[in-house]
Amino acid sequence: MAVVMFPDSIPPRLKQQLAFLIEADRLKQVLRRSYVGQQSRRENSAEHSWHLVLMATLLSEYAPQLNTLRVLQMLVTHDLIEIDAGDTFYFDAAANLDKAQREQKAADRIFGLLPPDQASWVRDLWDEFEAAQTPEARWAKAIDSLHPVLQNWANKGGSWQANGIRAQEVIKRKSQDLAGFPELQALALSLIQDAAEQGLIEP
Amino acid sequence: MAVVMFPDSIPPRLKQQLAFLIEADRLKQVLRRSYVGQQSRRENSAEHSWHLVLMATLLSEYAPQLNTLRVLQMLVTHDLIEIDAGDTFYFDAAANLDKAQREQKAADRIFGLLPPDQASWVRDLWDEFEAAQTPEARWAKAIDSLHPVLQNWANKGGSWQANGIRAQEVIKRKSQDLAGFPELQALALSLIQDAAEQGLIEP
Repeated sequence: MAVVMFPDSIPPRLKQQLAFLIEADRLKQVLRRSYVGQQSRRENSAEHSWHLVLMATLLSEYAPQLNTLRVLQMLVTHDLIEIDAGDTFYFDAAANLDKAQREQKAADRIFGLLPPDQASWVRDLWDEFEAAQTPEARWAKAIDSLHPVLQNWANKGGSWQANGIRAQEVIKRKSQDLAGFPELQALALSLIQDAAEQGLIEP
Repeated sequence: MAVVMFPDSIPPRLKQQLAFLIEADRLKQVLRRSYVGQQSRRENSAEHSWHLVLMATLLSEYAPQLNTLRVLQMLVTHDLIEIDAGDTFYFDAAANLDKAQREQKAADRIFGLLPPDQASWVRDLWDEFEAAQTPEARWAKAIDSLHPVLQNWANKGGSWQANGIRAQEVIKRKSQDLAGFPELQALALSLIQDAAEQGLIEP
């Protein structure tokens, strides 16, 4: 993190908020395994987060009644820890071993840039997302899991092809992630099966 | 737009929603004049939209009482028309002449991908943003206007330097855009003056 020297005329609380928002700019540099467009380049985590907020907004009829504002606040902040911890590929078992530890450390530093009340508020949002116990967190997690399926299907195989992921593995994981959201679970299975039939993913 | 052939097993309404969400992926390819990081590359409109949703979430104490959910929904959708209409640079007077016409046409096509009830809902959101009459739209517009000031200040001049924009012009425009939000107006002026003192922008 670069040290940011704000003009003295800016109030201290606002300086902390801005330091956080400038730090957040670095999320635009974090590359994911997913692709944008027709595999022209890998997606970054800021773009991914935007797409999730849009998905949650437009697919809300497939969720139970819940606090939509909290879902959007959760999705817009949930990947900020990747500025330090990087994007951990969903199908990389080894990288997932120390994921929690790396991300906790990142959360301490990055959320700690905010004024203390907002730092705890964002930390609570992120802890809620990670724990996946509330209806809002389960829905946010379901959207996060559905996104690469849609992206890879539309991008002719995307990160499945680039990383040799097999359809049977994706079906197993997505069926679990999307349990509780029957329309989205059925959708994910349709898209994966269609991708397999088109030869975009190995069975 | 590529024609998207969904598996027959997906219900028609969901197909329309997905066609829209896949189309939205193209926003990640729209480059703006602003830079990310230390001027390493130009920002795209999807990343920009994500940063605005984050800013509106964390700076809400500088806005009057308003419907925060509607603000976030407005900010996540407000730049989708740039998929067709492109990003029109704020200081490019010529390009701004036919901006409204290009963007209306883009809105017809892009929002029209959604099921009719959602197409009108997103259109209403976007019309409200553009008209800038409601407290929610004024706040969303203020955040949209503040973002490049923060970005350029943090990026050592960014799009101001790259496009030969002068401090007096930025001060004039931002004072107008941020009228009604005294803390943010004072913040923008502090950052522009500090950038001028550092030689990051011509007076």
